[in-house]
Amino acid sequence: MAQFEARASNFKERVLASFGKQSFLEMLGGEITHIAPGEVDITLTARDGLQQQHGFFHAGVTTTIADSAAGYAAFSLFGVGDGVLTSEFKINLLNPAQGSKLVAKGRVLKPGKMLTICRGDVYAYQDDSEIHVATGLFTMVRAEGLEP
Amino acid sequence: MAQFEARASNFKERVLASFGKQSFLEMLGGEITHIAPGEVDITLTARDGLQQQHGFFHAGVTTTIADSAAGYAAFSLFGVGDGVLTSEFKINLLNPAQGSKLVAKGRVLKPGKMLTICRGDVYAYQDDSEIHVATGLFTMVRAEGLEP
Amino acid sequence: MAQFEARASNFKERVLASFGKQSFLEMLGGEITHIAPGEVDITLTARDGLQQQHGFFHAGVTTTIADSAAGYAAFSLFGVGDGVLTSEFKINLLNPAQGSKLVAKGRVLKPGKMLTICRGDVYAYQDDSEIHVATGLFTMVRAEGLEP
Amino acid sequence: MAQFEARASNFKERVLASFGKQSFLEMLGGEITHIAPGEVDITLTARDGLQQQHGFFHAGVTTTIADSAAGYAAFSLFGVGDGVLTSEFKINLLNPAQGSKLVAKGRVLKPGKMLTICRGDVYAYQDDSEIHVATGLFTMVRAEGLEP
Repeated sequence: MAQFEARASNFKERVLASFGKQSFLEMLGGEITHIAPGEVDITLTARDGLQQQHGFFHAGVTTTIADSAAGYAAFSLFGVGDGVLTSEFKINLLNPAQGSKLVAKGRVLKPGKMLTICRGDVYAYQDDSEIHVATGLFTMVRAEGLEP
Repeated sequence: MAQFEARASNFKERVLASFGKQSFLEMLGGEITHIAPGEVDITLTARDGLQQQHGFFHAGVTTTIADSAAGYAAFSLFGVGDGVLTSEFKINLLNPAQGSKLVAKGRVLKPGKMLTICRGDVYAYQDDSEIHVATGLFTMVRAEGLEP
Repeated sequence: MAQFEARASNFKERVLASFGKQSFLEMLGGEITHIAPGEVDITLTARDGLQQQHGFFHAGVTTTIADSAAGYAAFSLFGVGDGVLTSEFKINLLNPAQGSKLVAKGRVLKPGKMLTICRGDVYAYQDDSEIHVATGLFTMVRAEGLEP
Repeated sequence: MAQFEARASNFKERVLASFGKQSFLEMLGGEITHIAPGEVDITLTARDGLQQQHGFFHAGVTTTIADSAAGYAAFSLFGVGDGVLTSEFKINLLNPAQGSKLVAKGRVLKPGKMLTICRGDVYAYQDDSEIHVATGLFTMVRAEGLEP
């Protein structure tokens, strides 16, 4: 069901290597739990320090993992030497983000030479329940020579 | 030049009290440095742990302080007992976010009974230079009985 | 596979009656070609007067039918007496919109008492080919007493 | 107060020539009423056929003139031979669009080699009153060799 083809055969290693340099994701405790051409998932386990004023995950946390998942979904298709930068995005917060775990799913909708458009969705898990907490659209820029 | 009137006379105390409950902003090191009716600024000093893969502030950091500044700009106009939730936003990242300090300026564009529309802009400072790193539009929901 | 339930049994008639009052859609030549709870499609046949400077459908045309399809997808779930207003949306134009026909598919993602979040996608058809020309996210407001 | 410099000395003629090829804007009755480097205004006089179901200007009309004004604001800075395409935008509808006239003001926020970010605001006029009906953010692409 893979719709897209990665230009670099070592795309998984490249995604993990670049992601490993995002100190902010390390601070949040986000981990990559799925990589395929045009697809990246990031999983985040609840911890202290990620909340907004009502005790839900802060919109900034939800957004950060959605943005990173979408960015690496785009990056997974890029050639060696290319980097990725977020140009813009829009996100709708559909439900309060509460639970023991968040998973952000970044998926490429339209790859391009210059711009790659992605969707990013975030789900919250508590026991057996799954809640769709956010959906967004992201424009990613391929930045030649800017790898990692 | 204040265009808007705050419904609660103690709006500054309410903003600071609610903001103090955002553990995520505490983790990032964001501080409120300006409050007026419909206006909130958040200042963040550079520190380790806030970076993306090229060493710039992560888009999630820029976005988080823009979202919080916009949310509290809306909240500053609300009545006692009301809370604020972000419904959605869109942000354009105009320049790489690098420097010793970021300032997010949240400003109400259109207050409403139910929805309040805000602008959020983020500037990066290095020595004497100021760079406009992001601009966004935010829809905030007034949530009755959900204070803080 | 209908995920949602319409509050009004005559939801199809209500959608068509309200849509019939949109003189702008009549000017464009848009027609509703699918209605289900939370789902509306609008089809537009190419004609003179809908182009931008390169001869493609103008982004405003693509956007208008996406917005109307999304709005009526939300409206299809509302109760008698309720009207619908667009609060905001974001749209990515994925490919040049050219062909003999456009179809906009509005789908409710998250219904709500006050706000209903929808996706809107537009496809262009030429002979046997289908191209995904736009995808967007829409926030629709339920306006009590504002039917149609 | 012009912040930007136009690459082509005949930028006004180029904007008007390209705008004249937008048959959709002619159908709507939009006219360019201001051009400066990075700035374009479009004015639209009320007429039958532009309404949504409550008799206000359709969101698609408001959006179309905002998009065109933003696109030509970007185009005004481009060099000879370059065309402009809208990549994406987001718009908030702040107030019902009613009145005898709409004016869309497109302004460049950040010019770029590849992407130019613009703001677009729409105002409605009735007798002596001015109402801010919409504000949006637009990403425009410079398309080499695609003039007009």
